[in-house]
Formats: sequence, C-alpha cells, structure tokens
Amino acid sequence: MPTLSGDRIRHSVVFTLAHEAGSEREADFLRAIADLASIPGVEAFELMREVSPKNAFDHALTMEFADRGAYEAYNVHPNHTRFVESRWDAEVKDFLEVDTAAR
Amino acid sequence: MPTLSGDRIRHSVVFTLAHEAGSEREADFLRAIADLASIPGVEAFELMREVSPKNAFDHALTMEFADRGAYEAYNVHPNHTRFVESRWDAEVKDFLEVDTAAR
Repeated sequence: MPTLSGDRIRHSVVFTLAHEAGSEREADFLRAIADLASIPGVEAFELMREVSPKNAFDHALTMEFADRGAYEAYNVHPNHTRFVESRWDAEVKDFLEVDTAAR
Repeated sequence: MPTLSGDRIRHSVVFTLAHEAGSEREADFLRAIADLASIPGVEAFELMREVSPKNAFDHALTMEFADRGAYEAYNVHPNHTRFVESRWDAEVKDFLEVDTAAR
C-alpha cells in the first residue's frame, strides 16, 4: 500500500449495520456505499469486512483524497450528503471515523 | 493502495499516548513502534498522524499480513510481545484495534 505523503488524507470508517448479517438489506446498503467511490476526488476506495474480535464493528471502508480540499468537496457532494441523510443515519447502528495523514 | 484480496489481513491501530504532543518521550515511543516493521511477516507498515476531529486519537499505524498465520506469528514474536509488555501498556492512554479483510 503506497504510504501517505504530503497533503494526502486517508478517510476510514468502521461501522455496524442495523441489518442482519447476510441479509438482502445489508447487501443493498453495501452496494449503495460502494457507489460513493464514483464521487469526484475519491481515490483508493475499499470496502472490507472488519474481522477483529477486539471491537464490535462488522464493516470498514477506506478512501483517499489528494488534499483536504478534495476531502471537503466530497463531504458536501450531493451524492454523499444524500446518502448520509437518507441511508447512513437510518441504517448504521454504530460507527467510528478515522482520518490519517503523513507524519 | 492495493486492495485486500484472498487471505490478506490489514491490521490497524489508532492510539493516544500518555506523553505530551511533540515531546521527546513521544518521539522515542514512535521510533520504537516503527521498529515493529522489521518483524517477519509485516508488510506495508505505515505510521501516521490521526487528524479527524471526530475522535480523540492522535496516532495511527497500519500493517498487512499475507494470511492469519503470518499475523499470529507477529503477535507472538518476542519483539512484539516485549514491546507490548514494556512500552505499549505503560505509555498508551487509549487505543482501538481494527482488522480488515476482503469481502
């Protein structure tokens, strides 16, 4: 994995859904999340299973932005805000956001 | 960042230190953490700043393993266990471990 450098930001989220594991509703939500990858500025998008027994999260996503401007453009992009308002808030039971940058 | 596939596991930890930000003790701890990268099986090691205002963590590290066997070998490696016992437990105020794998 190329290491972060300069102004690059890696945005990661771990989360647990209100939907039963393996359900169609879960699959549908994960398909909708994968669509966020097409928002301008989003790089290195990855949707994964969270497998550590040391936390209760089930899913994880990560993406990178060239700089904070690209990250903020993503945050306010209608596809992102619409997804948060219409799906994330209702279907995610718990989550944690982590943003990392080069030292 | 190459996406995870097959049996690969990405091991990530976010943490906050007992040491003051910018102090020599903080720098010394971070140098010691960077040494973990030389443990056999550790790939794609990265030590970063955690910059999200949505959590209280200050630092993040990530590494990858080819499979769970490599990860477990790392966990029991004397350099790792010694680091955890002699430094991590005493100098880390709070932390969260996240392990991710391909869906």
